[in-house]
Amino acid sequence: MANFKGHALPGSFFLLFGLWWSIKYPLRYCWQNSRVGGRTTLSACFQRLDLIEGVLKLLFCLVGILAEQFVPDGPHMHLYSEEEHSWVKLMNWQHSTMYLFYAISGITDIVTFTPIPTPQGLDRLMLSMAVFVEGFLFYFHLHGRSPLDVHIHSLLLVAVFGGAASIFLEVFLRDNVILELFRSSLAILQGTWFFQIGFVLFPPNGGPQWDENMHDNMTFITMCFCWHYVGALLIMAINYTVVWCGVRRCTRREGGNMEMNLQKKPSKNGSKKGLLQHCEDEEEEE
Amino acid sequence: MANFKGHALPGSFFLLFGLWWSIKYPLRYCWQNSRVGGRTTLSACFQRLDLIEGVLKLLFCLVGILAEQFVPDGPHMHLYSEEEHSWVKLMNWQHSTMYLFYAISGITDIVTFTPIPTPQGLDRLMLSMAVFVEGFLFYFHLHGRSPLDVHIHSLLLVAVFGGAASIFLEVFLRDNVILELFRSSLAILQGTWFFQIGFVLFPPNGGPQWDENMHDNMTFITMCFCWHYVGALLIMAINYTVVWCGVRRCTRREGGNMEMNLQKKPSKNGSKKGLLQHCEDEEEEE
Amino acid sequence: MANFKGHALPGSFFLLFGLWWSIKYPLRYCWQNSRVGGRTTLSACFQRLDLIEGVLKLLFCLVGILAEQFVPDGPHMHLYSEEEHSWVKLMNWQHSTMYLFYAISGITDIVTFTPIPTPQGLDRLMLSMAVFVEGFLFYFHLHGRSPLDVHIHSLLLVAVFGGAASIFLEVFLRDNVILELFRSSLAILQGTWFFQIGFVLFPPNGGPQWDENMHDNMTFITMCFCWHYVGALLIMAINYTVVWCGVRRCTRREGGNMEMNLQKKPSKNGSKKGLLQHCEDEEEEE
Amino acid sequence: MANFKGHALPGSFFLLFGLWWSIKYPLRYCWQNSRVGGRTTLSACFQRLDLIEGVLKLLFCLVGILAEQFVPDGPHMHLYSEEEHSWVKLMNWQHSTMYLFYAISGITDIVTFTPIPTPQGLDRLMLSMAVFVEGFLFYFHLHGRSPLDVHIHSLLLVAVFGGAASIFLEVFLRDNVILELFRSSLAILQGTWFFQIGFVLFPPNGGPQWDENMHDNMTFITMCFCWHYVGALLIMAINYTVVWCGVRRCTRREGGNMEMNLQKKPSKNGSKKGLLQHCEDEEEEE
Repeated sequence: MANFKGHALPGSFFLLFGLWWSIKYPLRYCWQNSRVGGRTTLSACFQRLDLIEGVLKLLFCLVGILAEQFVPDGPHMHLYSEEEHSWVKLMNWQHSTMYLFYAISGITDIVTFTPIPTPQGLDRLMLSMAVFVEGFLFYFHLHGRSPLDVHIHSLLLVAVFGGAASIFLEVFLRDNVILELFRSSLAILQGTWFFQIGFVLFPPNGGPQWDENMHDNMTFITMCFCWHYVGALLIMAINYTVVWCGVRRCTRREGGNMEMNLQKKPSKNGSKKGLLQHCEDEEEEE
Repeated sequence: MANFKGHALPGSFFLLFGLWWSIKYPLRYCWQNSRVGGRTTLSACFQRLDLIEGVLKLLFCLVGILAEQFVPDGPHMHLYSEEEHSWVKLMNWQHSTMYLFYAISGITDIVTFTPIPTPQGLDRLMLSMAVFVEGFLFYFHLHGRSPLDVHIHSLLLVAVFGGAASIFLEVFLRDNVILELFRSSLAILQGTWFFQIGFVLFPPNGGPQWDENMHDNMTFITMCFCWHYVGALLIMAINYTVVWCGVRRCTRREGGNMEMNLQKKPSKNGSKKGLLQHCEDEEEEE
Repeated sequence: MANFKGHALPGSFFLLFGLWWSIKYPLRYCWQNSRVGGRTTLSACFQRLDLIEGVLKLLFCLVGILAEQFVPDGPHMHLYSEEEHSWVKLMNWQHSTMYLFYAISGITDIVTFTPIPTPQGLDRLMLSMAVFVEGFLFYFHLHGRSPLDVHIHSLLLVAVFGGAASIFLEVFLRDNVILELFRSSLAILQGTWFFQIGFVLFPPNGGPQWDENMHDNMTFITMCFCWHYVGALLIMAINYTVVWCGVRRCTRREGGNMEMNLQKKPSKNGSKKGLLQHCEDEEEEE
Repeated sequence: MANFKGHALPGSFFLLFGLWWSIKYPLRYCWQNSRVGGRTTLSACFQRLDLIEGVLKLLFCLVGILAEQFVPDGPHMHLYSEEEHSWVKLMNWQHSTMYLFYAISGITDIVTFTPIPTPQGLDRLMLSMAVFVEGFLFYFHLHGRSPLDVHIHSLLLVAVFGGAASIFLEVFLRDNVILELFRSSLAILQGTWFFQIGFVLFPPNGGPQWDENMHDNMTFITMCFCWHYVGALLIMAINYTVVWCGVRRCTRREGGNMEMNLQKKPSKNGSKKGLLQHCEDEEEEE
C-alpha cells in the first residue's frame, strides 16, 4: 500500500511493541534488583505476558497480511496474471511476506509455551530472521525510485539490520538487559520512522510535496533520523524512571521487614556484571 | 555444467544433507532432554553416524568432481589448451574446486575418528571454509551474465555466507542446537534454491524462457527466495515434531520406572540455558 | 564551521580524552597488578574520576553545540528559512547533532552515579552509539566534495567505526584492559587526524592549497593516517611506561611489609588471562 | 619495489612464519595432550621460542624497510621533492609503512618478556593491527591499475582481512589451537600468493606477459587462489602428522610408567572442548 496508511499501519505495530518492551524490560530488571516477592512468582507472571505478546504479534501480522491483500487496489491473492503475462501487485506481496515472517516469529513464541521442548533461544532466532527478512526485502525494493525515497528507506535499513544483529546476539546472551533495552529503542525508532516516511512521501493533509532530488533534503533527513533516535532514547529514559519509581514504592510498602533478610547479599544481583567481571569475582571468592 | 542437471546435482546433495541434519539434531536434542538410556550409548551411536556422514560427503564430492570433469562437454582434466592459447572449460573447473573443498571437509570429518588427536572444532572450521569457498567462487563467477542470472545467484550467496558465518560460530559454540538447526534450515534452503535456479534459467520441459531483464521478475525472485525459506522452516518444524513424538513414545515404553530416579534434576538439562543465565544460576547455587 | 577552528575544537576534545584514558587505564591496570592499598579504595577513587569525566564530557559538548549554533555565520537555532524555502546551515546542525549524542553519553555516565539502578554497560552502549552516530553523519556528509576531501574524511571513518565496534564489545567484556587501551589509541588518532584535516583543507598560516584532485596526495594521506596511528601508539607506550614506573615507586615505598602477605597468590591477578585460559585453570584446580 | 624481488621478499617472510607456526602450534597441542614432562617445562621452552620469534620478526622488518628505502631506485628517505613539487616514490614508502607495523608487533612480542607488566593479548592485538594496516594500505593502493593487477591484489585482501579478524579473536580466545592453525594456514597462503603475484605480473624468466584484461585470466586466478589454500592445508596436514608422530615416539620412550599415573583423567585435556560443552560438563560434575 504505497500511501500514508500503508506506512502508518506497520509504524503503529512497531511503536506499540517498542513502547511495551520499554516498560516490560525495565520492570523485570528493577523487580529483580529489588528482590521482593521472590523470583518464581515474577517469572511465572512474565511468561504469561510473553505468551500474550506472541499471540498479539500473530494477530497483528494476520491483520497486516489481510490488509495488504484485500484493500481495494490489492492483489486479492492473485500472484500472476495470465492475460497480461505479468506479476500482480508485487509490492503488496512483498509486504505480505514481511508480515508472514513476523507471524512465524509469533508462532514460535507461542510454541515455547506448549509441552514440546523447543530449544531456548529459538524465539530470538526467529525474531532476528523476521527483522532480517524485512531489511532484505526492503534492500531489493528500492530499484528505480527517486533519490530521497531510496535514502529515506536506506536509513530505515540501518535500524533494521542493527536490530537483527542485536537480536541474534540475544540467542547467546539471553536476558541481557542492555540488549533488550537496545532492541526496544530500535523498535520505537522504526515505528516513528515509518510515520516519518509516510509524512514525507505522502503528505497526509495535502501539504506541499518535498523536492525529492534536492540534496539538502537528504542531508536534513539523515539528521532527522538521528533526532528520532534521540526521541526514542528520551521515551526509554522516561519509561525507565517511571517504572523504577513504581517498583520502589511497591517494594517499600510490601517489602518492609523482608528487606532485612535480604540485606546480606546486595552485591549478588548478577545483572550488574559483565562476563569477565563475574569471572574475577569468582576468583576472589575461591 | 550449465544446464538443469548441473544445478539438480548439487541441489540434491544439499537437500539430502539438510533433511538428514533436520532429523539428526532434533533427535539428539530430544533424546538428551528425555535422558533415558544414558548419554554414553547415545554419543557412541551419534559418533558412528558422524563418521558415515563424513564418508558420504566425500563420496558425493568425488561423484561431483568426476561428473564435472568427464561429462561429454567437460574439460577431461585439461586446464590449458596450448593450441588455442586459452583456458579449457573454466566453469567446470570452478565447480570441481567447490566439490574439492567439501571433500576436504569430509576427509576432516573422517580423520577425527582416527587415533590422531585432531583439535575439536576442526571439522566445523573446514566445513565453514568449504561453504565460504563456494560463496567466494560464486561471487566472482557472475561477470557478464544477464541481470536475472546475476540476481538469482546473488540471493544464493546470502544463504551461503550466512551459513559459513553460522558454522564458524559452531567452532566456538559446539553442539549449540540453535546453530545446528539454523545450519540445517540453510542447507535445505540452498538445496531447493539450486533447483529453483535450474527451473528458471534452464526450464527442463521446454517451457517458455523467463525475460531475464524484466525488473518485476527480479522482484518476484527475491520474494520467492523468502518463500523457499518459509518452506525450509516448515519442513524443519514437521521433522522436529515427528522426532519428538517418536522419542517420547520410546522413552515412555522403555523408560518406565527410570523416570522416577531422574525426576530430581529436571531443570539441569543444560541445553535450555544461555551463557549468562547459566552464570546467574551458578550464583544462586553458591 | 568549515574552517580550521571547526576542526581544531573537536580534535582537541578527542585528543584530551584519548590522552586522559591513556593514563587512566594503565594506572588502574598497574595498580591492580601491584595490589597495594586494596581494591576498595582504588575503585572508589576511580569512580569519582569517572563522574568527573562524565561531567566534563557534557560540558565540552555544550560548548561545542553553542559554538556551532552561535558563531557569526551559524544558524542561531533557525532550522528552516520560510523566505528562501531552504534549510539553514545544515552542516552546523549536523555537527550540533554529533555533539548532542556525546552529551547523551555524558549524561548516562553521570546517571550511573545516582541511586537509579542503571544496568551496567549502559554507559558503554551510549558511548558506542555516540561514536557510531558521528561516523553515520560523516558518511552521508561527503556528497559533492573534492576527492581529497572525501578521502581524508573516509579515513577518519575507519577510526570512528573501529572505535564504535570496539566500545560495543566493552558492553559485554567490561573492564577489559586491551579494549580500553585500544579505545584510547583510537581516540588519540581521531584527535590528531582532525587537526590534520584542518591543516590540509584550511592551511592556517596562509600556506599553499593542496591540489585536491592529484592522486599522489591521496596516496600520501592514506599513509600519513597510518603514521598518525604509529604516533598514537608511541604516546600510549610512553604514558604506560611512565605510569608503571610511578606505581612501582609508590608501592615500593608504601607497600613494604604488606607485600609479603600478598605474595601467596601473585598469579591470581585475573587481568592477564583470556577467557579460555581461565577455564583451563579452573579445571586444574578442581 | 614493483618487480619480482619486491614480491618474493615479503612472500618469503610470510611463508617462513607460516611454516614455523604450522610446526609450533601442533607441537604444543600434541605435547599438552600427551602430558609428559609437565606443563611448566614446556611453557618455559615455548616462551623462549616466542621471544626468538619476536626478535626475528623485528629483524626481518628492518631488512624490509632498508631494502625498500635504499634499493637503487628507492626514495633514500626522501619523502617530498621540493624541486618537482611531488612526493618521492610513494609506493616504496607504503611498503616501508607496512613493514613498520610488523616491526611494532615484533617489539610488542619482545616487551612481553621484560618485567613491565603488559596486559595479556596485547601482542595479538598489535599483530592484528599490523595485518589490518597491510590490508588497509593495499586496499587504497590499487587505483588506476589493470583489471588483473587489481583482482590479484584483491584476492590477497581476503586472506589479509580474514587473518586480521581471526587474530583479533585470539585477543579474547588466547591459545585456541583452531584459531592458531587457521592463522598459520592463512600466513602460508599469503606467502605463496605473493610469489604467485610476482610470477604473474613480472614473469621472472622473461616468459610471455599475461593478457591483463582477458576475463578468463581473472576467473583462473580466482580459482588458483583456492588451490593455493588447498596447498596450504596440505602442508599443514603433513606437518601436523609428522609432529604428532614425533611427539608420540618421544612420549612412549620417555613416558613409560608416568603414563599410568595420568590415566585417571584422560578426559580433562580441556583443549578438546568448546565453551558450552565445558559448561555442561561442569553442571554434571556439580
